[in-house]
Amino acid sequence: MRPVVVSGVGMIPFERRDEDSLVDMMAMAGLRAMDDAGLGDRPVDSVYVGNMASGLFNHQVSVASALVDRLSLMPAAADRVENGPASGGSAVKNGFLAVASGFNDVVLVIGGEKMREVIGPRATDIVACMTHPLAEYIYGVTLPAMAGMFTRLYMEKYGVTRKHLTEVAVKNQENGLLNPYAHIQMKITMEGTLTHPQAHVNNPVVADPIHLYDCCPVSDGAAAVLLTTEEIAKELSKPSVYIAGVGQATDTHTLQERSDPTELKAVQIASQKAFEMAELTPQDIDVAELHDAFTILEIAESEQAGFFPLGEGGKAVDAGETRIGGSLPINPSGGLKARGHPVGATGVAQVVELVWQLRNEAGEHQVEDASKGFSLNFGGFGNNVLAFVLRREG
Amino acid sequence: MRPVVVSGVGMIPFERRDEDSLVDMMAMAGLRAMDDAGLGDRPVDSVYVGNMASGLFNHQVSVASALVDRLSLMPAAADRVENGPASGGSAVKNGFLAVASGFNDVVLVIGGEKMREVIGPRATDIVACMTHPLAEYIYGVTLPAMAGMFTRLYMEKYGVTRKHLTEVAVKNQENGLLNPYAHIQMKITMEGTLTHPQAHVNNPVVADPIHLYDCCPVSDGAAAVLLTTEEIAKELSKPSVYIAGVGQATDTHTLQERSDPTELKAVQIASQKAFEMAELTPQDIDVAELHDAFTILEIAESEQAGFFPLGEGGKAVDAGETRIGGSLPINPSGGLKARGHPVGATGVAQVVELVWQLRNEAGEHQVEDASKGFSLNFGGFGNNVLAFVLRREG
Repeated sequence: MRPVVVSGVGMIPFERRDEDSLVDMMAMAGLRAMDDAGLGDRPVDSVYVGNMASGLFNHQVSVASALVDRLSLMPAAADRVENGPASGGSAVKNGFLAVASGFNDVVLVIGGEKMREVIGPRATDIVACMTHPLAEYIYGVTLPAMAGMFTRLYMEKYGVTRKHLTEVAVKNQENGLLNPYAHIQMKITMEGTLTHPQAHVNNPVVADPIHLYDCCPVSDGAAAVLLTTEEIAKELSKPSVYIAGVGQATDTHTLQERSDPTELKAVQIASQKAFEMAELTPQDIDVAELHDAFTILEIAESEQAGFFPLGEGGKAVDAGETRIGGSLPINPSGGLKARGHPVGATGVAQVVELVWQLRNEAGEHQVEDASKGFSLNFGGFGNNVLAFVLRREG
Repeated sequence: MRPVVVSGVGMIPFERRDEDSLVDMMAMAGLRAMDDAGLGDRPVDSVYVGNMASGLFNHQVSVASALVDRLSLMPAAADRVENGPASGGSAVKNGFLAVASGFNDVVLVIGGEKMREVIGPRATDIVACMTHPLAEYIYGVTLPAMAGMFTRLYMEKYGVTRKHLTEVAVKNQENGLLNPYAHIQMKITMEGTLTHPQAHVNNPVVADPIHLYDCCPVSDGAAAVLLTTEEIAKELSKPSVYIAGVGQATDTHTLQERSDPTELKAVQIASQKAFEMAELTPQDIDVAELHDAFTILEIAESEQAGFFPLGEGGKAVDAGETRIGGSLPINPSGGLKARGHPVGATGVAQVVELVWQLRNEAGEHQVEDASKGFSLNFGGFGNNVLAFVLRREG
């Protein structure tokens, strides 16, 4: 396989964006990535779109064809890749393969989702369409409900506490305040969300033991990366950041079929594959972007991807190890929790954040001396997971 | 790039399949492809699903994750690829890249669509979601309406007649009668559909000048191909058929933006790219599967892909050149017209048909001595097109 370089990245702020269509948002992110790379008039061979549910959210299919036209990149190839909440990661992987194979030299990967086009409960229903139609969906399961059950099990098995969970939320919203692209720009405190007698007013139960501030918001947004060969990257304007490792793995479609539902096998396998390909270990990583759609997931993934032993992830948060400045900063961007989770955009936004970190361009949320990064994009309830290891040149 | 071989193919009959879910259908096709290859217990590294609109047709997303579980192929990677009516072709392309790059050794590509879960007019609306939301969809455009306008222009510019169009329908339904996988199993005649004074009763106008028998049916179905390396293919049971050429190209999202709407640039470019990669020309091809969602498309594509000069495609049909036994048999399977067009399945089904032809396994619709095949999968109204050249080993 040819080495693949991320030569340009771009995002638009995640928020509720009533004025912009899905294709508008993705076009803006794509233009920023091309501009960031200094691509000039060099042709783009292929566009990959990561998007979960344009049909259900926006009554539109073939958004990749719409986007390539909006960006005037015809006759570039254009495909949309869908893998639930890991759609962005799957789009990056397939863009990577297009360059790695030698089939394409310049590939633009854009993830986007416009979720706020529908009203609240309908968005929750659309997200629930990723569950098993006969074993889960028809019983009214939603993703927060599943996360609630998973959180309870994980707390009981590994001693994670509500304090640990809330610390993830507080940390990520603090990081979000340093990131102008983050949807949630609001400081929360341990007292206001957990210990104050009236904390349940600010932070009500969503699906016990999950509270409001354990959940990511419903956002609109888009993010983009421009992938090229080593040779072309050298002619462009930015320092090269390599996609050094790519891993993907699946697990049972339903959570209930797993003998131990706290074991996230797809997270374990995808991470191992990415590390093996990169010839690195979790200990080599300077910064990680994990898929904290719910606070428990940041803790569970930090253990199952290999950064902390099982049962130690909550304690690591408590000890401040995962803050910016800690031994392994996790979600300096604010993560899904604060940056937001426009579903198809997330896996791409994670890579964008890592590239900014590895180029020392992350501004106020910069992790010092970061040269190796890791991202994890979690589809379904851990049934389809992608992991990436990125490495700065040199 | 490593050479990529189609080592196994499988399909289920296209029809209205009320008893089977989308995932059921795709699992059956996938099992047939693995069985056809004699894969045994050799692991599948990755599953690619071609599907246009599971969200809108079946209120389900993440169908690739559902499918990999149904087939018990975890932890294989799984992604869905969407590109409107060319979703199947895009899935084949991305599966091809996964093997060609060296990232995967065994990849299962499954295309499927369950369109009959919704009632008639709703299916037409869902298909129309591929058009431009502001420039086309809101004005009530449908694909048959666009095809009607395109047909009128093409007839005027190139002298195609209703007789030529009807000859395509009659030929493809004749071929469909020889193919047990075809949805439409009904002989039609030139007299009954065109010349009889009561022909308009059998064959009413849908969107002038298009009549009922100029349109493909709305079908449920699935098709699958198993892709491997040359080395693994030699250890499996079937003769190797290579994916020798892959081409993809886009054009303006809307038909109205093209200076000459009869010029299908994406068909021209995608075909040229596939031929160049295969180091072959249209004259080398023994059998072609074209995207005849409407009869005019078979004629237009046969010209713009380079098989006949512009304006000669209709005459070639009239002369019998495109029948089984003619100089270039087109759609011996019955094409979309008779086999049916479960959208995401089509691009994969075309490759399945070519493999059967090149292996001399096509039964009653076999084209004699076919060693090189071509398929064209047409997305949107020609805004995103994939072309493949397949070649039998030796």
